[in-house]
Amino acid sequence: MILKTLEILQKVKNNELTIEQAQKLIEQPLDYATIDYDRKKRTGNHEVIYGAGKTKEQIIGIVKNMLDHDIHSILITRVDQEKSEAILKEFPQMIYDSLSHICYIDEDQKEINKGKIVVVCAGTSDLPVAREAMLTAQFLGNEVELVSDVGVAGIHRLFHRLDTIQRANVLVVCAGMEGALASVVGGLVDKPVIAVPTSIGYGANFDGLSALLAMLNSCASGVSVVNIDNGFGAGFMAHTINCLGGKK
Amino acid sequence: MILKTLEILQKVKNNELTIEQAQKLIEQPLDYATIDYDRKKRTGNHEVIYGAGKTKEQIIGIVKNMLDHDIHSILITRVDQEKSEAILKEFPQMIYDSLSHICYIDEDQKEINKGKIVVVCAGTSDLPVAREAMLTAQFLGNEVELVSDVGVAGIHRLFHRLDTIQRANVLVVCAGMEGALASVVGGLVDKPVIAVPTSIGYGANFDGLSALLAMLNSCASGVSVVNIDNGFGAGFMAHTINCLGGKK
Amino acid sequence: MILKTLEILQKVKNNELTIEQAQKLIEQPLDYATIDYDRKKRTGNHEVIYGAGKTKEQIIGIVKNMLDHDIHSILITRVDQEKSEAILKEFPQMIYDSLSHICYIDEDQKEINKGKIVVVCAGTSDLPVAREAMLTAQFLGNEVELVSDVGVAGIHRLFHRLDTIQRANVLVVCAGMEGALASVVGGLVDKPVIAVPTSIGYGANFDGLSALLAMLNSCASGVSVVNIDNGFGAGFMAHTINCLGGKK
Amino acid sequence: MILKTLEILQKVKNNELTIEQAQKLIEQPLDYATIDYDRKKRTGNHEVIYGAGKTKEQIIGIVKNMLDHDIHSILITRVDQEKSEAILKEFPQMIYDSLSHICYIDEDQKEINKGKIVVVCAGTSDLPVAREAMLTAQFLGNEVELVSDVGVAGIHRLFHRLDTIQRANVLVVCAGMEGALASVVGGLVDKPVIAVPTSIGYGANFDGLSALLAMLNSCASGVSVVNIDNGFGAGFMAHTINCLGGKK
Amino acid sequence: MILKTLEILQKVKNNELTIEQAQKLIEQPLDYATIDYDRKKRTGNHEVIYGAGKTKEQIIGIVKNMLDHDIHSILITRVDQEKSEAILKEFPQMIYDSLSHICYIDEDQKEINKGKIVVVCAGTSDLPVAREAMLTAQFLGNEVELVSDVGVAGIHRLFHRLDTIQRANVLVVCAGMEGALASVVGGLVDKPVIAVPTSIGYGANFDGLSALLAMLNSCASGVSVVNIDNGFGAGFMAHTINCLGGKK
Amino acid sequence: MILKTLEILQKVKNNELTIEQAQKLIEQPLDYATIDYDRKKRTGNHEVIYGAGKTKEQIIGIVKNMLDHDIHSILITRVDQEKSEAILKEFPQMIYDSLSHICYIDEDQKEINKGKIVVVCAGTSDLPVAREAMLTAQFLGNEVELVSDVGVAGIHRLFHRLDTIQRANVLVVCAGMEGALASVVGGLVDKPVIAVPTSIGYGANFDGLSALLAMLNSCASGVSVVNIDNGFGAGFMAHTINCLGGKK
Amino acid sequence: MILKTLEILQKVKNNELTIEQAQKLIEQPLDYATIDYDRKKRTGNHEVIYGAGKTKEQIIGIVKNMLDHDIHSILITRVDQEKSEAILKEFPQMIYDSLSHICYIDEDQKEINKGKIVVVCAGTSDLPVAREAMLTAQFLGNEVELVSDVGVAGIHRLFHRLDTIQRANVLVVCAGMEGALASVVGGLVDKPVIAVPTSIGYGANFDGLSALLAMLNSCASGVSVVNIDNGFGAGFMAHTINCLGGKK
Amino acid sequence: MILKTLEILQKVKNNELTIEQAQKLIEQPLDYATIDYDRKKRTGNHEVIYGAGKTKEQIIGIVKNMLDHDIHSILITRVDQEKSEAILKEFPQMIYDSLSHICYIDEDQKEINKGKIVVVCAGTSDLPVAREAMLTAQFLGNEVELVSDVGVAGIHRLFHRLDTIQRANVLVVCAGMEGALASVVGGLVDKPVIAVPTSIGYGANFDGLSALLAMLNSCASGVSVVNIDNGFGAGFMAHTINCLGGKK
Repeated sequence: MILKTLEILQKVKNNELTIEQAQKLIEQPLDYATIDYDRKKRTGNHEVIYGAGKTKEQIIGIVKNMLDHDIHSILITRVDQEKSEAILKEFPQMIYDSLSHICYIDEDQKEINKGKIVVVCAGTSDLPVAREAMLTAQFLGNEVELVSDVGVAGIHRLFHRLDTIQRANVLVVCAGMEGALASVVGGLVDKPVIAVPTSIGYGANFDGLSALLAMLNSCASGVSVVNIDNGFGAGFMAHTINCLGGKK
Repeated sequence: MILKTLEILQKVKNNELTIEQAQKLIEQPLDYATIDYDRKKRTGNHEVIYGAGKTKEQIIGIVKNMLDHDIHSILITRVDQEKSEAILKEFPQMIYDSLSHICYIDEDQKEINKGKIVVVCAGTSDLPVAREAMLTAQFLGNEVELVSDVGVAGIHRLFHRLDTIQRANVLVVCAGMEGALASVVGGLVDKPVIAVPTSIGYGANFDGLSALLAMLNSCASGVSVVNIDNGFGAGFMAHTINCLGGKK
Repeated sequence: MILKTLEILQKVKNNELTIEQAQKLIEQPLDYATIDYDRKKRTGNHEVIYGAGKTKEQIIGIVKNMLDHDIHSILITRVDQEKSEAILKEFPQMIYDSLSHICYIDEDQKEINKGKIVVVCAGTSDLPVAREAMLTAQFLGNEVELVSDVGVAGIHRLFHRLDTIQRANVLVVCAGMEGALASVVGGLVDKPVIAVPTSIGYGANFDGLSALLAMLNSCASGVSVVNIDNGFGAGFMAHTINCLGGKK
Repeated sequence: MILKTLEILQKVKNNELTIEQAQKLIEQPLDYATIDYDRKKRTGNHEVIYGAGKTKEQIIGIVKNMLDHDIHSILITRVDQEKSEAILKEFPQMIYDSLSHICYIDEDQKEINKGKIVVVCAGTSDLPVAREAMLTAQFLGNEVELVSDVGVAGIHRLFHRLDTIQRANVLVVCAGMEGALASVVGGLVDKPVIAVPTSIGYGANFDGLSALLAMLNSCASGVSVVNIDNGFGAGFMAHTINCLGGKK
Repeated sequence: MILKTLEILQKVKNNELTIEQAQKLIEQPLDYATIDYDRKKRTGNHEVIYGAGKTKEQIIGIVKNMLDHDIHSILITRVDQEKSEAILKEFPQMIYDSLSHICYIDEDQKEINKGKIVVVCAGTSDLPVAREAMLTAQFLGNEVELVSDVGVAGIHRLFHRLDTIQRANVLVVCAGMEGALASVVGGLVDKPVIAVPTSIGYGANFDGLSALLAMLNSCASGVSVVNIDNGFGAGFMAHTINCLGGKK
Repeated sequence: MILKTLEILQKVKNNELTIEQAQKLIEQPLDYATIDYDRKKRTGNHEVIYGAGKTKEQIIGIVKNMLDHDIHSILITRVDQEKSEAILKEFPQMIYDSLSHICYIDEDQKEINKGKIVVVCAGTSDLPVAREAMLTAQFLGNEVELVSDVGVAGIHRLFHRLDTIQRANVLVVCAGMEGALASVVGGLVDKPVIAVPTSIGYGANFDGLSALLAMLNSCASGVSVVNIDNGFGAGFMAHTINCLGGKK
Repeated sequence: MILKTLEILQKVKNNELTIEQAQKLIEQPLDYATIDYDRKKRTGNHEVIYGAGKTKEQIIGIVKNMLDHDIHSILITRVDQEKSEAILKEFPQMIYDSLSHICYIDEDQKEINKGKIVVVCAGTSDLPVAREAMLTAQFLGNEVELVSDVGVAGIHRLFHRLDTIQRANVLVVCAGMEGALASVVGGLVDKPVIAVPTSIGYGANFDGLSALLAMLNSCASGVSVVNIDNGFGAGFMAHTINCLGGKK
Repeated sequence: MILKTLEILQKVKNNELTIEQAQKLIEQPLDYATIDYDRKKRTGNHEVIYGAGKTKEQIIGIVKNMLDHDIHSILITRVDQEKSEAILKEFPQMIYDSLSHICYIDEDQKEINKGKIVVVCAGTSDLPVAREAMLTAQFLGNEVELVSDVGVAGIHRLFHRLDTIQRANVLVVCAGMEGALASVVGGLVDKPVIAVPTSIGYGANFDGLSALLAMLNSCASGVSVVNIDNGFGAGFMAHTINCLGGKK
């Protein structure tokens, strides 16, 4: 059972808890998680919760604990439908985006970065990953534009959006299959490109390996890569880079 | 020792060889190779010699045997510098192309296919493979044009050559690293594209694996793939396809 | 919501839409897909919809949009049973082939290629892939014959069908396990062979890797390879090649 | 033979070259390379020459051609000892760094970025890669500091350099073996980290695969990855990011 | 059907079984398993049952047989929920730990080792594996302390627990993703560290391969590795090592 | 619909079928399978049906067709529970072994080989594969003995069964995990050993890869290997070898 | 220094060695190798020396020791040119086969097996492996015939040798690239086939992996596999099998 | 140039160095290495130098620096012949073991651990790795016994040494190929076993992968694994464990 700080103090007063028990509860009330309350101060961002591999009870416990510590900007990634329902029942103020499997609440004030991030996405099937990148970057305080379904097999579609792409400060490129879009975009801009291989494809795609290797071997300079399907990581990296250009 | 047919017959007459010995020598004089004299009749092309893994003595024996059977169009692939010297010493009429490691003689009459084959090559480092494809297709009776150093990181270079590319009947695309060129070319033409991954690159290139997987996962239709660095195979396949368009 | 062009124009007239909104809807009414209306003009074929990784709502939206643009030859690959039911409920004129998981409508006039494509299939278990190749090639305007269950372990079965095989203009060979059929067929014909590794097998098959590697290493010339289980890609490539032989 | 523009014009005047020949020589005098003279204008940086897989004759030809076009900032990566000697004999003004295998000339004026790039290096054996990153970033106009031999097995060594690390605008982390340094650094800063896996190690290192996978799976946010041993790519990416912070 | 020894003897007396049948039943009553009754005498520990790949009937048969041989300390690993219900219905005295999927009964007297084992766990998602290690080591007679959620991305969390870590006699470190925690802990202690890669992660994690390779390549000395997710193996190894320090 | 030969002839008489239709039906009545009726004559054994990847309708069609051709010894491998029910409903004379997933009927007379085959199995979890080998070898006419649960971690269990093992004419060794049993057995006998890696294990087992590689690298001579989990293949190979020793 | 037994005994008599020292020298005079003198008695064959990874001094020591124990049939595999020269200088009675890298002496009387072994070899480049198999089987007492250069791309070459192939008692099939020959041969005979993948090929051959996987997935029954390039293992296995057919 | 502390102080006195320069030289005189002088105090052992990837100049600099700091027990691993010569020329007091490629000096006093470490080695070819383990453990203060050439193919050889093996406190097992020895030894003892896969083998050994996977999947408990060929790591781990048993 997880108690609010006030309740803990009350219990100390009532001799229901010893000083030592109370201190432990206040400092680290969860035995399965060590929450990094200082993270925002240290790195500028609140800790994000990686939802996969955690039970819904654990996630709810962590969120409750963060809310109790007055953290009101919380992003949870990789929350499946079933967990999302339990979470939203407990915290109706949270929002669930079923495409990207992100669950979040975003009530803190924040400064917005000056530069724009553009998320480019090869095909409709890559949208969940692209959207994870977009929501993450927005959550962290960035203006984001999404350019969708512009894969290299019909490269004129990409050129129709060249203006948008070349106005970006940072780019995130999500592509599965042969992942060629990252190299093509990288050759068209002089801004940093974060490439996200997706697991879209089959057979010799080997769950995203083909796009991952292609992106790591990009002949375009100014391209770096995050893990397969790691839209969150790309959005976070793009934000970290975008901060260098200053706030609005 | 390998004898010319005439010498064999002379020996039979002189009772130096039995009829049975002579027959065996005429039909299969080499104990390490079974030459397919009917291949041209059956498949339209002479057997090509795969030079890797054969000693220079074996290659010379096979060539001598083919010349004795009046085969005067011979292509040997993957001949290293040292073997080439031994071969050219024995058969000064042969030509060695040190970039593609091909050794050939090409004295037969042949009909030329109507359509043109265009070999597109991503970078200067991919030239040896591209050239193997080009020489193979020329040897088999095709007009071939080479478009070099048009990788996707500077895609305008490719568009400068669009005319040439779109006039091709069949295309061979050689690229290492992320192998994206095959998909981009595949999206620009309505003709068959043979993609050749090359082993150019390093690290997560894994000796051509990145380009191979990328090409197999091409989002462009009308693209098929041959083995890594298999310029010969691509040239041969392009020729086989080009034959469907008829002879000049 | 997706509107027909007429409805959009009506709304403009009624001032329910601005000119700008209408233009955007007409040109690209879907925010998750960039349909390539000019593809037929540019590459000779309508865009095919890759069904995997798209929701049924997205597929229905794309089909509706294409029909509104008077495209009446539509092929959707990798449609599972559940999606197919939703699609056929919306568009009863479409046909679903449950073996190959293809959903299509084929009402456009088209010219038929002169040469015949033969799809050769190693075992009964490879039929779904072979059928995807066959339906694709038929859809694109080719006469196709299927030769089934002629794997190399009983090679006489293949020789019984030699006539059919040698009359083909282009061949597609589908095989799982050791994928040897492609090499054997490649040695028997002088026409292009498209090899399709299938994921049929188990253990050291590694989901089709064994057949893929075997086919890429084929000792027969005139063989090129598409992705594992990519019957569609093989059918498309065979069609592209077959076009070179002219129309009936 | 490669001619200077003046010589070409002279030859035109002397009727030694036709107008068409001259035009071709001026625009693309090399048949093996398509030099991207506009790259600086388009992407802000001159094209860098990838030295591996090119013959020394090809490299010399490209450099000569660039100098003739008044490009005097040239960086060539992956130049082995033997090639470097031929290049320096031809162009004594070039400098060869034998540790990083970079060959360069750097005579253009350039603006320097405001922020500092810090290159962190796990062990002495990773120095060649770290130095490739450092020289690249310096060449492109950045102030770079190198922090060497601070691997995680003795993590206090890293903490001794915390000040330097936390003052960086962008970080490049080079590590082989288990590549853990990238995650640890990523957790200590709020700036973008470019991780470079190196091939240092043996056995289950699989030529850098262990560090590559580790870095792609980093539990720290704000980390992205380039190819194994790709110090150049990391230096370039760090520069591209650092540009966002403005010039001095 | 499995009989107790007494029942067997009774049946021999009643001539329902021959001497030979009885001997076989007593010595090896199960045709699907060869139980190693002497294991405790030989290696100091009872055989542990590997639950995966065995039917619940087989597990129940083995447990019944062991109980009949007066073995009352039994540990079964990898028991899923459904099997656990069948087992607990048959043996209500057994305990099921649903997090680690361990089912056990622990009624034998045992000596406790002097040194303490500390199990360190990178994230909440790694807890099932850590708990498997902890329960195994406790079952075998060790005092175990668990330090949870101290991954390297927030390395100060680890340092808060340094005292606990440095007081351990043996350490087990469970981590997924990049598995860096093992190297960091290994550099902070002079005691043996057993590293357990977990399959927590996604994409280029390849089901635990990234952490496995990272741990095998640890730059810290005094670290050895067990199979991915093998909490049991780590707990067992830690116990075997801990025995060297003597009993309480 | 599949007709018996008699029915076909009746229909010919009734003019319900043309001569040509009838011939086709008699010779190859199934469009999805090419049954090899001469296989027994040619190779000594009836064709075995590989059940995976075939629908139950296809399997039933093939069995019906074989029965119509008076083949009454039929073995179908890899039949899951659901397919088995459909098959047994149609052919109640067939037997289904749920452990090995084999479905068979065995009514032909056959000669039995003189030598005994011994199937050795490392653990209870490997039994399904071992049983597939055993049933296959019995079906083909061999006396088979099963030695179960004698893995190398308690090697005395193996030595208790040494007599049985050394009396075998051919051995089949099934083991998962590290697959060491094959080498140990191979060193104890002078008879051929067929090693079957099983997919039993987890983590770095990679679905049987560890045992497969181990067995291929066996330091014992006289060991050869079949595919992972291929109990059928091992049983068949053991039979083929055992035939050399003659019939009883 | 290695002493002959007689010298040892002499030294004991002279009190130059204690009884214990002498016993140790007689039983195991080499500190780097434990020679298995009883192997012939136990398994029917003398131990074969694996030459790779041993120094020439170690090999010479082992041979000297075996000769001293009156073993005069010795086979050493994988002896490179340089080691062979040192060995032959020491033991001029040994024979070195430079193609297969086997070094042997074969002076023991031996019985010859009744059945014939046929070694089938796909291409000239596979000959070294085929010859290793042939020499091994001959050394162990078998009549062996070699059928060379009959790869599946020209399958009529194989059919010309069908008589030889079908008269074999056991077959060894050596093939690189796609390794299809094993399946084709396996379908043509009813005798055991030992498949040897060779490392002949390039690119996606991955040093023999393609042929290895293909052979493990053979759709023909009665085929089992040894390690890549393991001609010795295949020859040994074929001999072990051939023994079952009895001696001449 | 590297100066001894005395020389530095002299230079300070002579005003040849500033105080700041001197301090830096004393504390970290090498710009390519951060020597961990406190390591012995912190972890009980001096830092070991990983020789691979360092130039001989770097190694000599580090050794000189350590000697200057009065460290006289230095172990350098992976020193090739050429580097060793340069090192021994500089430091004649060092010893080079050419089999294990270790270079060391061992002049510090040290306590010896009570328990014995036994290094077991499968074949003569695995000796270099086994010897690296042995020398490392001896260097760190352990009594070590080597049991060589007792691979599982002739398992009686292992049983002859059972006494030695069962008297060990800790065991190191080095084996290549199928790596089965670790499991067999693990089943025979109740002490911790450190398994070292070696790269001995060929083909599907994949440079030690087969032994590595086998050892990670060991069915014996109490076995953990270090990197391929990492004899040093195994020796170090064995020492760390052995310390728990106390000093002599």
